[in-house]
Amino acid sequence: MIDTLSIVGVGLLGASIGLAARKRRLARHVLGVGRDPATLERAASRGAIDSACNLQEAARRSQLVVVCTPVDTVAEYVEKIALHCAAHTHITDVGSTKAAIVHRLQGLPFVGSHPLAGSEKRGAEHADAELFQDKMTVVTPTAVTPADAVEAIAAFWRALGARVKLMDPEAHDRALALTSHLPHLTAAALAGILPPELHELTATGFRDTTRVAAGHPSLWTGIFAQNRAATLDALHRLSAQLERYRVALETGDWAALDALLTHAKKVRDALAS
Amino acid sequence: MIDTLSIVGVGLLGASIGLAARKRRLARHVLGVGRDPATLERAASRGAIDSACNLQEAARRSQLVVVCTPVDTVAEYVEKIALHCAAHTHITDVGSTKAAIVHRLQGLPFVGSHPLAGSEKRGAEHADAELFQDKMTVVTPTAVTPADAVEAIAAFWRALGARVKLMDPEAHDRALALTSHLPHLTAAALAGILPPELHELTATGFRDTTRVAAGHPSLWTGIFAQNRAATLDALHRLSAQLERYRVALETGDWAALDALLTHAKKVRDALAS
Repeated sequence: MIDTLSIVGVGLLGASIGLAARKRRLARHVLGVGRDPATLERAASRGAIDSACNLQEAARRSQLVVVCTPVDTVAEYVEKIALHCAAHTHITDVGSTKAAIVHRLQGLPFVGSHPLAGSEKRGAEHADAELFQDKMTVVTPTAVTPADAVEAIAAFWRALGARVKLMDPEAHDRALALTSHLPHLTAAALAGILPPELHELTATGFRDTTRVAAGHPSLWTGIFAQNRAATLDALHRLSAQLERYRVALETGDWAALDALLTHAKKVRDALAS
Repeated sequence: MIDTLSIVGVGLLGASIGLAARKRRLARHVLGVGRDPATLERAASRGAIDSACNLQEAARRSQLVVVCTPVDTVAEYVEKIALHCAAHTHITDVGSTKAAIVHRLQGLPFVGSHPLAGSEKRGAEHADAELFQDKMTVVTPTAVTPADAVEAIAAFWRALGARVKLMDPEAHDRALALTSHLPHLTAAALAGILPPELHELTATGFRDTTRVAAGHPSLWTGIFAQNRAATLDALHRLSAQLERYRVALETGDWAALDALLTHAKKVRDALAS
């Protein structure tokens, strides 16, 4: 147990961390930092934080600070925290991209994290103390990250119930481009070409396939901007795969189409529902 | 209430029709027809059919026959049923494509139907008497379909709890290419490019987006084969949309990317969860 944990940004993920940490008694005090008093109030009333304070006070008082803000603002918050925190304070984040953030923060007491536990839902009102239970969290040290810092951050996520995998930031970003950023882009593209008069002809298949497109546009623009090269590469791979489907359809090569669908089913069946 | 309803093919949809019809007392007898005795036995033990018989007997005894087989076999079953059924027997189906089936069966006592209530699950063991409740069923008459036949089929679906929309078969196929067939193809393409080592880095977003790819390959090959032109057209529209995303990423046009994502969110938010 640490004395004080601070959470910067108490939306869905931040508030869930607060709930989980308090439930598991990982910190005596959980402080929340945010620009919007109403958001902090909601997090406090949900029991996700004990109280709110400003960034400087949170930095000074905490042994661990978790930055849960949009990816394009994480590095700036961490830099400010690092100016005011004690020598042994650890800082981490929950951003969906890692390379840009981690490299800008090289040399600061920061270890990047990405819990794979997001949702198209937002806000402390959807926070869940079990959000991280049995979920994967990727922790992304570099060659110069101190081992004790990596271990402290990994232990924190494990204490919240998560499984932890260490990856280098670039490998994380390439992987997540395929497992998250490209699926998001594709879901949005499918939703984007649906004419209004066909809304009533959608069923669970369309709704599942496009669900993530309800995610917040500016959060996702930030993610795509930070993981541009890997997302473009993933999009290129998808286009090549779609071209295989197109050729099979165009030429009536039903054996080829069946083989593509059979491989896809095998991959999908191997994942949890 | 009719005297005898027959269901040809007692998988998920067929068995759900049987359960729903018996629960709502729409028929005194529900007969099941199928090639696999074990499947018929499962449907009977679920209470989806009263008994099994062959196609000829079912045709002779029924006032309504619903063909729930893969789309590439529907027309052949209907032709056989039409040879043996009484003058006022109605025949319908549940196929995901309509134009090819309906046009081949022009002049027979057949009205095409498509309940938008599928699932990647299969088999009578997943059957559900409420599967059609508040779901849309598209009924696809042509210019020469008798009005009383259309009304009988529409009334049947409404009695199962469904909402009914009449569309011409080609309009149905063009619409479903965008709302179902293209999303299926895209989900399969996304699943198909996932390397095995990244399975552990998938979360709910990937799983939602690719869920339908677990559907049965040969059923879907049949659907794509019957709706080839409209699926190719839908795929062309998706490729054009993905190209807009690619250009925005490539050129760093974050305002354009945000606008694409904002439009997609608006469409997705307008659909039920």
